[in-house]
Amino acid sequence: MDKLRIVKIGGNVIENQTALESFLLDFSLLDGRTLLVHGGGKEASQMATQLNIPVQMIDGRRVTDRATLELITMVYSGKINKSIVAQLQARGCNALGFTGADGNVILASKRPEKPIDFGFVGDITHINTPMIKMLLHAGITPVFCAITHDGSGQLLNTNADTVASALAQALASDFEVELLYCFEKKGVLEQVDNDESVLLKINTQRYQHLLKDQKIHSGMLPKLKNCFDALSKGVSKVFIGNAEMLKGQPPFTQIEL
Amino acid sequence: MDKLRIVKIGGNVIENQTALESFLLDFSLLDGRTLLVHGGGKEASQMATQLNIPVQMIDGRRVTDRATLELITMVYSGKINKSIVAQLQARGCNALGFTGADGNVILASKRPEKPIDFGFVGDITHINTPMIKMLLHAGITPVFCAITHDGSGQLLNTNADTVASALAQALASDFEVELLYCFEKKGVLEQVDNDESVLLKINTQRYQHLLKDQKIHSGMLPKLKNCFDALSKGVSKVFIGNAEMLKGQPPFTQIEL
Repeated sequence: MDKLRIVKIGGNVIENQTALESFLLDFSLLDGRTLLVHGGGKEASQMATQLNIPVQMIDGRRVTDRATLELITMVYSGKINKSIVAQLQARGCNALGFTGADGNVILASKRPEKPIDFGFVGDITHINTPMIKMLLHAGITPVFCAITHDGSGQLLNTNADTVASALAQALASDFEVELLYCFEKKGVLEQVDNDESVLLKINTQRYQHLLKDQKIHSGMLPKLKNCFDALSKGVSKVFIGNAEMLKGQPPFTQIEL
Repeated sequence: MDKLRIVKIGGNVIENQTALESFLLDFSLLDGRTLLVHGGGKEASQMATQLNIPVQMIDGRRVTDRATLELITMVYSGKINKSIVAQLQARGCNALGFTGADGNVILASKRPEKPIDFGFVGDITHINTPMIKMLLHAGITPVFCAITHDGSGQLLNTNADTVASALAQALASDFEVELLYCFEKKGVLEQVDNDESVLLKINTQRYQHLLKDQKIHSGMLPKLKNCFDALSKGVSKVFIGNAEMLKGQPPFTQIEL
């Protein structure tokens, strides 16, 4: 089977123009088939303030009302996505930008309003694998922002880590998929305030221990869930680290079943 | 040869949600292969005011400085393009949104700064026909906003009428291409202030007469140039009219050599 690397970059890489350019250079140098998923960063929040769109939070989580959805669609699928696509093209990588609506590639359903109404947030229900396969085989590198659609005309906000995991799972029967989560840290840390305490391997057993010892901080919990979900659905390898990981530069964390 | 309809819609259709929905329904009902190019509308200007981005004009034409380019990229390729794509998907049309950078489909060069520096404005130099053909043959309806790129990482602002004409010309050797310019009027008017004075046919000779008699107002001149350019490069048929034209509903204007 062909190898496919699915890389997700988070907001902290995107916010720093130098870090982003360096990341995109390393990404464009990866051999074989590649797919990129990017998060949003703080730009949308800054612009919300400028446009007087109030930020609504419930339980520390942002509510995606209609105005916020329009704003993040502009920032994620317009500004950030197209800037990444143009920069990858300049480095010889044939990038093509996507929301889930484009080519009907990611269908989602709006999250139920009970118990908490988070607004226009989508949970992925279907990945259009044949379309993505066709593009990958044509030498395209799909570049996804984390916007999906419900198939009835409604765009939806979906977590970028989850988009990357769902794509990896859907493509695992056609490719030998490696899933790489790139963020600002070198990997999953044993001590949250010690950047050098990178755990080199986490398997299911270790994960249970870490959970029991409350060593996994709250932001890392859903990311690790996405990692284990991917592995249990046939994704070959899953890694968490910073952009240096793309060059194979240790340390970084490998997640295993 | 397969038939391909390339439809361009202008800002006035996009600004009116009811008109846009009605247009997209008619567009989705067209048989055979289709491609859509959309303009921008006034939304970008309104948002420029909100974000305190000054509008710079030279000789009545807007200058695309860096802040304006970022803004129109957000509005055209983010908000407008993705809204159209999601609405077409809801009507069973397999739409996929594009800037010229996506899949490297439209290369342009930044217009020279002399005699007038219009900023980040691009003149089209190359269309990646094989990529667009592959997508059309896969049943995709490409949806283009009028943003191109220079292949070195720079996005550029390009006139949407020109994008539509350039795509039609590039695809004319592979498809029997019809190019339809949809705007708010029923067609090219003989008297500019009489909406019913639609000219049903304009050929080169008639065009010369109209020019001599100064019957063509300034906004229509570049559109008609794009029409004749397309016809001279092998595009089968070119029409100008309002959205009713998609249903074959006269009156509208047919342009002929």
